[in-house]
Amino acid sequence: MAGKNRIELLADIMAMPGFSHSSGMRVVAAEPGKVSLALSKRAELTQFFGHFHGGVIAGLADQAAGAAVSTALPAGRIAVTVEIKINFLSPADGEEIIARAEAMQTGGTIGVAKVEVISQDKGAERICAFATATMRAVDFPVQMADPARR
Amino acid sequence: MAGKNRIELLADIMAMPGFSHSSGMRVVAAEPGKVSLALSKRAELTQFFGHFHGGVIAGLADQAAGAAVSTALPAGRIAVTVEIKINFLSPADGEEIIARAEAMQTGGTIGVAKVEVISQDKGAERICAFATATMRAVDFPVQMADPARR
Amino acid sequence: MAGKNRIELLADIMAMPGFSHSSGMRVVAAEPGKVSLALSKRAELTQFFGHFHGGVIAGLADQAAGAAVSTALPAGRIAVTVEIKINFLSPADGEEIIARAEAMQTGGTIGVAKVEVISQDKGAERICAFATATMRAVDFPVQMADPARR
Amino acid sequence: MAGKNRIELLADIMAMPGFSHSSGMRVVAAEPGKVSLALSKRAELTQFFGHFHGGVIAGLADQAAGAAVSTALPAGRIAVTVEIKINFLSPADGEEIIARAEAMQTGGTIGVAKVEVISQDKGAERICAFATATMRAVDFPVQMADPARR
Repeated sequence: MAGKNRIELLADIMAMPGFSHSSGMRVVAAEPGKVSLALSKRAELTQFFGHFHGGVIAGLADQAAGAAVSTALPAGRIAVTVEIKINFLSPADGEEIIARAEAMQTGGTIGVAKVEVISQDKGAERICAFATATMRAVDFPVQMADPARR
Repeated sequence: MAGKNRIELLADIMAMPGFSHSSGMRVVAAEPGKVSLALSKRAELTQFFGHFHGGVIAGLADQAAGAAVSTALPAGRIAVTVEIKINFLSPADGEEIIARAEAMQTGGTIGVAKVEVISQDKGAERICAFATATMRAVDFPVQMADPARR
Repeated sequence: MAGKNRIELLADIMAMPGFSHSSGMRVVAAEPGKVSLALSKRAELTQFFGHFHGGVIAGLADQAAGAAVSTALPAGRIAVTVEIKINFLSPADGEEIIARAEAMQTGGTIGVAKVEVISQDKGAERICAFATATMRAVDFPVQMADPARR
Repeated sequence: MAGKNRIELLADIMAMPGFSHSSGMRVVAAEPGKVSLALSKRAELTQFFGHFHGGVIAGLADQAAGAAVSTALPAGRIAVTVEIKINFLSPADGEEIIARAEAMQTGGTIGVAKVEVISQDKGAERICAFATATMRAVDFPVQMADPARR
């Protein structure tokens, strides 16, 4: 991935096989410390009322929080989630959800981000969830080579 | 669903189309106020290190917390998630994860559950996450008929 | 308290004997759904580094969140805290801390607020903590008369 | 404090001027990774119903969580709070509250504890709150000498 900037790296990571790719998460906007990710509704992402499942919303918020903190870290460092807390404020009953994450702290070891999740339906937007996440910075290629460490 | 008990209802709900079914969540044990759910590893549920994705772990914990509170509510009431908070304690690098939820409070409007998530690999178990979730009790069939309400 | 508006009621409640009064919390600004409270440093409010104690910061954030949601509720209803989550972002080493709370949701039963806590020193401000709190609306005079209910 | 063990150090820290001392927190039991602290009711620690104030309960839980993680760290290291999340489960209307904290993770940089808070009245106990806290390990004497760092 030599020569790529952090935003390109972000897209690369999300295109790797796994939940972010299989669920259909995509980068909407990204700059250091601020990342927006979107996810379109599909039957396999819903709960029993037909809205987005809370775990899926949390997963999108988590991914956006990690990306927001990671893009603000020095090169070679990536953020892994220590904890995430999410309030569900209204039904996520739109066609798609968008998680807008913003880093509030990016220290040497700890990063914190807040995330607004929007439910969007035919252009109308409403906040459906709000999350905060605490991240820990780890070395990126080293971690990739060692699957036993988180 | 007439004549079914709350545990059977739980399995019915999880078999409905949506994230809990498509991801492969299954009921391992259930009694009023205590529910354990499991999920086997599949490539589309992982993050970039090949472990279970944080959103998937949060989704399983959320589902188990909701089930633990719901099974302790009066008939005709179901728990919907107000908020969930989860700490990731060690890599979820096992073959499957098991979320063991226990209701700590089940009042008229508010329910609270704690959830231990275990990563299991060849019989060895390790706690990989710990969550608490706050639930709100709503009428079950009414809500089912009204997709605009959460 | 007849004839008083909700903002006056807020000041009345905080002047009652208890932690908010004894610690020295005061109302800085208030409108429906938005309340700012301040607290000046005193030796008995600090931790071992001489900064504001985390519990004191959480207490101010809790009080501000409850006030922000309460001022947005119908008359005769008051918000009591279901849960609060606070991230400590930098040392609260200023002369005073200010908690700025804003309601994000004020439904019939559940209210949610976010709170920024600022550490202020000789006019310089820095965010030192960020909290979210979930509230439950209860009837106000009834609850006052019944000390056994929260 | 040479020659003192970690439990004695804990009592020393809590006896230093500040909120833990002025509010009256005391050590009830302590072993590496497990600490119980108690606090007796006084008018200045209550909210408007006359129960313990949420901030005071959070402060006791925070102090106990920090102590539980600190007593499990290597010598010369102490835990400072990254974030705390607390659910209030029932009125803290007893004569005293007791916070029983247990470390769930004590890694090189991050520690996590869970805390049950008990309201005790004439010998009867009831859980009134449940918290989880994330801690960060820092060097102890270095931090003491540098009040600008948290």
